[in-house]
Amino acid sequence: MPQSAITVIGLGSMGMGMARILVGAGFEVYGQDISEDRLAAFEAAGGRRAPLAEALAASRVVVSVVLNAAQTEAVLSDCAPQMGPGAVFVSCATVPPEFARQMADKAEAAGLHYLDAPISGGAVGAETGTLSIMASGSAAAFDVAMPALEAMSKVVYRLGDTAGAGSAMKAVNQLLAGVHLTAMGEALNFAASQGLDLGKVTEIITNSAGNSWMFQNRAPHVVENDYAPRSMVDIWPKDLGIVCDIAATGNVPVPLTEVALRQYRKASEAGDGAIDDAAVTRVYARACGVKLPGDV
Amino acid sequence: MPQSAITVIGLGSMGMGMARILVGAGFEVYGQDISEDRLAAFEAAGGRRAPLAEALAASRVVVSVVLNAAQTEAVLSDCAPQMGPGAVFVSCATVPPEFARQMADKAEAAGLHYLDAPISGGAVGAETGTLSIMASGSAAAFDVAMPALEAMSKVVYRLGDTAGAGSAMKAVNQLLAGVHLTAMGEALNFAASQGLDLGKVTEIITNSAGNSWMFQNRAPHVVENDYAPRSMVDIWPKDLGIVCDIAATGNVPVPLTEVALRQYRKASEAGDGAIDDAAVTRVYARACGVKLPGDV
Repeated sequence: MPQSAITVIGLGSMGMGMARILVGAGFEVYGQDISEDRLAAFEAAGGRRAPLAEALAASRVVVSVVLNAAQTEAVLSDCAPQMGPGAVFVSCATVPPEFARQMADKAEAAGLHYLDAPISGGAVGAETGTLSIMASGSAAAFDVAMPALEAMSKVVYRLGDTAGAGSAMKAVNQLLAGVHLTAMGEALNFAASQGLDLGKVTEIITNSAGNSWMFQNRAPHVVENDYAPRSMVDIWPKDLGIVCDIAATGNVPVPLTEVALRQYRKASEAGDGAIDDAAVTRVYARACGVKLPGDV
Repeated sequence: MPQSAITVIGLGSMGMGMARILVGAGFEVYGQDISEDRLAAFEAAGGRRAPLAEALAASRVVVSVVLNAAQTEAVLSDCAPQMGPGAVFVSCATVPPEFARQMADKAEAAGLHYLDAPISGGAVGAETGTLSIMASGSAAAFDVAMPALEAMSKVVYRLGDTAGAGSAMKAVNQLLAGVHLTAMGEALNFAASQGLDLGKVTEIITNSAGNSWMFQNRAPHVVENDYAPRSMVDIWPKDLGIVCDIAATGNVPVPLTEVALRQYRKASEAGDGAIDDAAVTRVYARACGVKLPGDV
């Protein structure tokens, strides 16, 4: 059987979008997921459905879009013995760089290529094929994966020829995004405590030196009291936990990240883990009795 | 004598630019400064020079562009008795909202108008007449000051009819900008510790969810090892100190701001107070032995 297909493992909010984009780009795409509903939805969208062994035998590219390192390791262990020689395992989860290097060693020992390829751009980026992919791996891994990567993204950053650099770059981005989102919460709560109108504050900050991508994207959720989860609070304890673990290994100071991590954990402990991550603002408001939009 | 002129008090990097823009817009502008060189430079640029009493008698608008609350109070005390009835005192320094309310009371008791009008946009914004002005005060104060404000800015935000709101809004902006700049230092040092190329990191972050106005503006200074002061480290202990003081008064939590304030103080204590504020990155690098661009 010729290896020309792609298998996407994990049809969640990111993986489903990516798999559909690949279908739309003309690839033969197999979807894998534990959810029957998601498999059916993907099939209805033109995707293929087959037992894992059959999908992997037909695929030259396997894209793993799971939640974390543990799931990535389990997926690679399942797949590696069934993938054809020269196929590439593209790992998109946010994981520690050292873990990515271990997975690459494991894949290469099995005669496979490995691409350390975290993604950025959220569910909207996945659905529209406009992700940013921060990738590192061998030239051979890039060669095999590149048509699929290009279909799914607006830009593929090549960060060198060994696994780890892609994950390190993703950690840098999450450090900044996670701190900026907490800073938004700190600033909106501070502004509300001073009697400022948060809609006006959001308008002004968006046009000032205090702006950030996260502020601009999330502050309107607080202003509109709309915490429907575009991206959940519970992403952050995981991602900033990775940043802090990497930092601890090298005695690298990350005091802002540690504060942000604490605030997301408090949000999660307060029962806000599964709502929109702009809810980190509520951690601040609860601590000092400030009223946010919608509070009575 | 008709009150049609403007007096600008403080011809530093901000005030000089603003005074020159007013000259260019056709106003009769008196400059006041303790430096003979600056007065001469302003005169050479078309500004007027006269004893304070004469300048104030001719001016309907007095723009105070000094460093802090103490200087603002001293300037207002000097000027108020010599300003004509109905003239407006426009205060641009970053000060606590409560201080702004006190100054407004003082000015209004002397028969003057007061505008709480902090500015954002840096020396470049001042020189090009593209500042953002975050202002609050009475309608009468706005009426008198508006032609001057519009000449100096790209946008004037009206934040209500009492002093204090302008300064509160400026504090929100400084909270965010100051935390974002420290986050840039934390992220670049973390990236360097992982062996990533900081030029590449800057390019990627600028196009990712981790971006901020401060990151985009300052990260190139670190990449190019260029700490010529566009904006000095020593601005931040002052401005974030104001934020923390306001927060303490209301028991409002600002843990990220407190961390950032500590990092700027460390930068200043290490002798970096008068260089570019991107040097906050060096606080991180010194703490863990990471080499930044230019370090040997």
